[in-house]
Amino acid sequence: MADPFPAVAEQAPYDFDRATSVVAVAGGWAAAIDPGWTVGGRPNGGYLVALAARAALASDAPGAAHPDPVAVSAHFLSPPSPGPADLAVASLRAGRSLSTWRVTLAQAGRPCLEALVTAGRLDQGAEPAWRAAGPPGLPPPGACVRGRPELPGGVRVPILEHLDVRLDPATAGWAAGRPAGRLEMRGWLRFQDGRPPDPLALLQVVDALPPTSFELGIASWAPTVELTAYVRHRPAAGWLRCMVRGRLLEGGWFDEEAEVWDEEDALVAQSRQLAGARAPVAPPRPG
Amino acid sequence: MADPFPAVAEQAPYDFDRATSVVAVAGGWAAAIDPGWTVGGRPNGGYLVALAARAALASDAPGAAHPDPVAVSAHFLSPPSPGPADLAVASLRAGRSLSTWRVTLAQAGRPCLEALVTAGRLDQGAEPAWRAAGPPGLPPPGACVRGRPELPGGVRVPILEHLDVRLDPATAGWAAGRPAGRLEMRGWLRFQDGRPPDPLALLQVVDALPPTSFELGIASWAPTVELTAYVRHRPAAGWLRCMVRGRLLEGGWFDEEAEVWDEEDALVAQSRQLAGARAPVAPPRPG
Repeated sequence: MADPFPAVAEQAPYDFDRATSVVAVAGGWAAAIDPGWTVGGRPNGGYLVALAARAALASDAPGAAHPDPVAVSAHFLSPPSPGPADLAVASLRAGRSLSTWRVTLAQAGRPCLEALVTAGRLDQGAEPAWRAAGPPGLPPPGACVRGRPELPGGVRVPILEHLDVRLDPATAGWAAGRPAGRLEMRGWLRFQDGRPPDPLALLQVVDALPPTSFELGIASWAPTVELTAYVRHRPAAGWLRCMVRGRLLEGGWFDEEAEVWDEEDALVAQSRQLAGARAPVAPPRPG
Repeated sequence: MADPFPAVAEQAPYDFDRATSVVAVAGGWAAAIDPGWTVGGRPNGGYLVALAARAALASDAPGAAHPDPVAVSAHFLSPPSPGPADLAVASLRAGRSLSTWRVTLAQAGRPCLEALVTAGRLDQGAEPAWRAAGPPGLPPPGACVRGRPELPGGVRVPILEHLDVRLDPATAGWAAGRPAGRLEMRGWLRFQDGRPPDPLALLQVVDALPPTSFELGIASWAPTVELTAYVRHRPAAGWLRCMVRGRLLEGGWFDEEAEVWDEEDALVAQSRQLAGARAPVAPPRPG
């Protein structure tokens, strides 16, 4: 797609910032949903959440007292397509320590995603006052399975041209037809173009691994119903580790909880999502 | 408070349904925030989320294809007081399997809570297609610590006149001045008046135990910033078990993840919230 916002793109040296750029229009913001941040033609959920948060933060008062997304909740209404989108932003609170906005992302008048974005300011040198445990172990990136922009079934995953994802071999069995039978996915992540991670990028990162449902042998798209992300700490430069687990698949819905850790072993983000997955039909028993 | 909706109250034999009743007014719904569902004078967060969901569900089309809240996200903007409140509801989606509404709870024109409510229909006989693990152990209710409507410091907790809460002694040390030093809280819950649990009630239940921050020795109010709840299964009659854990307290914010299990060992609800807590000042070192 031709870049619709050349002025913005000039200021944004990194792919992610170009793909989530917004420009002010009457009544809100305009954006171009980028075909590069899709899976099988559908925009990635974390990408859409980051785009919505970008519009909210761009609506902050001059001086930007609250530049960091702290808690972002999104309900997915209808999957948008790559192309132009409108983002209507309403201020719900402009407080001393927190601001909150409501963002409606629509395409051709059809609402696609509704997000609530609460932002604050994350202190650079913050330390845990209490923490449950350190990051779980993960083989080094070189011993992990590199995500490729094409799934075994031939589905194109352009987002992996922008995100360097290395899956723990213990949760990559699905790619070889041997799913582990658990809602679990773990891996390393960074931007392919060297963009350093920041709070906004964490909204993308929490939803960047393959769906845990793949490890249950369910290879189909897992549409997100709701995703909430908390940004807990300003991430250090380098690789991020993302650990995702789900508890239950029932009635066609499953949950996924993600934790993201940076190279300094700080817990930088948490998320949970509810998504759809149809369990595969059991093979017929031999007669 | 005098009951502002005697006609509704006549139809609602249970406290919780009276306290969350809404009546149609021009442009939305009116409710009375009940002083009985407060802690230290402030309405409980789960109660407010249930009230917002009630208004959303009351806005469903005739026939109510989607009577069960499935995913509810709420951002807390400003604590309301007991008394009249307005709930503005906007439909964001009316789909085949899911409907979504946005609810703004305001008091005297001031927005207090913004919620997104996605509802569907939970199948009565649904079984897990996959589940990570069964419910964790908990001593029987008779061996637990009964919640009393007054905290050690003298703070009144009227909500415990409506909710029968029995805390695991292992997470009730705070009440005796011996907090365990972990973000953990576990307990049994049911309504005092025998109201059977249902999907709406689970939105209350996920936020009904004392804040886990009490177990870090932080005895002050823990204002919720964001709370998201998923209802996964229609709960059986009887006691509910609520298991809450947090991962991190940093910069004055902590997370809490709740799981709720019913008497048939079904995982019926999950939630996560981000809340505020100021760590106690370390005592001065001797010498």
